[in-house]
Amino acid sequence: MHELDSSANRVKVLVTGATGFIGRTLLGKLQAHGWETAALVRPATENSEPRVFDNTKVFDYEGNYESVRRAVREFQPDVVVHLASLFLARHVPADIPALVSSNLLFGTLLLEAMAEAGGGRFVNTGTSWQHYDSDSYRPVNLYAATKQGFQDILDYYVDARGIKAITLKLSDTYGYGDVRPKLLQLLLRTWETGEVLKMSPGEQEIEYTHVDDVAKGFLGAAELLLGDTFCGSASYSLRSGAPVTVKELVKLIESLSGRRLNVEFGATEYRPREMMTAWKGEMLPKWKAEISLEKGLKEMLDKSGYGCES
Amino acid sequence: MHELDSSANRVKVLVTGATGFIGRTLLGKLQAHGWETAALVRPATENSEPRVFDNTKVFDYEGNYESVRRAVREFQPDVVVHLASLFLARHVPADIPALVSSNLLFGTLLLEAMAEAGGGRFVNTGTSWQHYDSDSYRPVNLYAATKQGFQDILDYYVDARGIKAITLKLSDTYGYGDVRPKLLQLLLRTWETGEVLKMSPGEQEIEYTHVDDVAKGFLGAAELLLGDTFCGSASYSLRSGAPVTVKELVKLIESLSGRRLNVEFGATEYRPREMMTAWKGEMLPKWKAEISLEKGLKEMLDKSGYGCES
Repeated sequence: MHELDSSANRVKVLVTGATGFIGRTLLGKLQAHGWETAALVRPATENSEPRVFDNTKVFDYEGNYESVRRAVREFQPDVVVHLASLFLARHVPADIPALVSSNLLFGTLLLEAMAEAGGGRFVNTGTSWQHYDSDSYRPVNLYAATKQGFQDILDYYVDARGIKAITLKLSDTYGYGDVRPKLLQLLLRTWETGEVLKMSPGEQEIEYTHVDDVAKGFLGAAELLLGDTFCGSASYSLRSGAPVTVKELVKLIESLSGRRLNVEFGATEYRPREMMTAWKGEMLPKWKAEISLEKGLKEMLDKSGYGCES
Repeated sequence: MHELDSSANRVKVLVTGATGFIGRTLLGKLQAHGWETAALVRPATENSEPRVFDNTKVFDYEGNYESVRRAVREFQPDVVVHLASLFLARHVPADIPALVSSNLLFGTLLLEAMAEAGGGRFVNTGTSWQHYDSDSYRPVNLYAATKQGFQDILDYYVDARGIKAITLKLSDTYGYGDVRPKLLQLLLRTWETGEVLKMSPGEQEIEYTHVDDVAKGFLGAAELLLGDTFCGSASYSLRSGAPVTVKELVKLIESLSGRRLNVEFGATEYRPREMMTAWKGEMLPKWKAEISLEKGLKEMLDKSGYGCES
C-alpha cells in the first residue's frame, strides 16, 4: 500500500458501493487516472465483502445522516459516484425494507449532505430495467422501480439544491473476478461440472458490457460533470451497443472454450417481464465500449482456466 | 359506539392516515355511504392523535410487513385508501428517514400485501406540489419528490402485480376542526390575538378545497375503481377550480368576519420555490368542489366563534 498523495490539486472522488465488482474496478481506474479516492461503505459484517482498498480513505456508512455528512465534510469530494444499491431480479416481501433503505434512503442522505455542503457533482447508477418494452418508464421489477423513484429524488436536488448529476443506466456487466450469481457465472459452472442447466428459450437480447468499459464510463461521466459546460442533469446508458441473445452467448462460450455446454433451452419459462429486446438508450457522450464480448469472454475463460487449449 | 354491521355485501374500505383531518372526515363519509371501514394506523404514542373511531376496525401498523399483511388478510378490503403521509413544507436532514419511511416504505408494504392477496384497488394521495411551475414533474420540495417516487413504485404494482390505482393530487385543503399548522390557522390566530402576522407579498395562488369535497373525491375515486370499466391507473386532481391569492384570502376573511387582520404583506420573502400559480391538473371525473371558499370559511369562522356578529 502506497502513502496517500496529499497534493491538493488532484480530483477527489467519493465512491459508494466500492466493495462491489464495479466499485473495485472503478477505484483502480480512478487512481490510474491520477485521482484521489475515498469509499463510503457499510461497516464490515461477517458476510460482507472485504473493505480493504489500496490508496483509498474509508468512511463508515452507519445507516444515518451523520455518518454520510462526515464523509462529505472530511473528504470534500469533487465528485460522488453512487454505485451502492441492493440488486434483486425478484424480491420477496421481506426484502422491501432493505430495498427502500439501500436504493432510496442512502442516496437521499448523500444528496442532502452534498446540498448542505453547497452542492456538488453526483454520478448516479440506473438500470436498463427501468425501460421494460423500451418504454420511457416501465419497470421490470421492484428494484427498477426504486431506481426510478430515486431519480425523482435526485431531480429535486438538481433542480432545487445545487447538485449536478449524471445517471448512467447499466445493462448487464461482466468481467473476470465477478462473483455475482448471474447467468455467466452459472454457465461457467456448468462448463466445469457438466451438469445440465435448464434455461428459458434463450431468445432474449442482452448487451453485455465489460466492467473495464463500465468503469471508464463512470470516469467519463465524472469528467463531463467537472467540465465547465455541464449544468443540470442528464441520463445516459452504458451498453455495448452489440446485443446478443442468450443462445448466441452460449454458442460464443462454446466456440471460445472448444467445449459444448450442457444447456437445455426451453426447459423453463422466461422470467416474468423478461426484457426480450435490449433497451437502446442514448449512450454517454465520448464513450464507447471497447472490449468486445468475444475478447472479454476469452479473457474470463483464460484467467479462469476454462480457455481453449489449442 | 355502535355494533359493527357484519353484512357481507357492504363495500369494505381500509384507510391509512385515518387519524388525520382528511382521514377522519373520509371515514364518516364512507360510513354515511353505507360502506364498512377499517383503519391501519400506527400504535398510539404520547403525542399521537386519538385512535378512537366510530364503527371502524383498527389495525396496528407496526412498521413492518407482517402488520400490514394482517390488516389486508383479515379485513379483505375492496378498496384501500392511502392517505398516510409525512407532510413537510420544508425538511431538515434529520427528517429524511421518516420521510422515506412514511412516504415510500409504508405504501410499498401495503401494495405488496395487496399484490400477495391477488391484487386490489388503491386510492393514492399525491400533491399539486409535484408540479412546480406547472411542469409535468418538478417537485417543490423533498416531500413532493417522495410522493413522485412512490408513484413510480405504484406504477410497478399496477403494471406487474394486478393493482388498479387512482392517484388524487391535492391542493390546499381546509375545514372546521383542522388543527394542522397551516396558513389559515395562522390567520385565525392573528384574528384572535391581534398580533402582527408578517407575510410574503401574498400574490401566490392557492386552490383551497373544503375537506368535505376532498372526502367526496376519495369516495368518488373508490367508486370509479369499483366500476367495471376501470383498468390500470389514473391520476386526477382534487381542487376547487377557483384559485385565490393569499391577499384575496385575507380580504375574504376580513369581509366575512367584519374585522381587519393585522397582516403585514411583503415583510418576508416568498418561500423557496413558492407555487405562484396553482397547478391546473385534470380533475377527477364526476366530481366538482361544491363548497365555495366563502361558504367554507364562513362555516369555519362561525363554528370557531370568529363569525361576523351582525
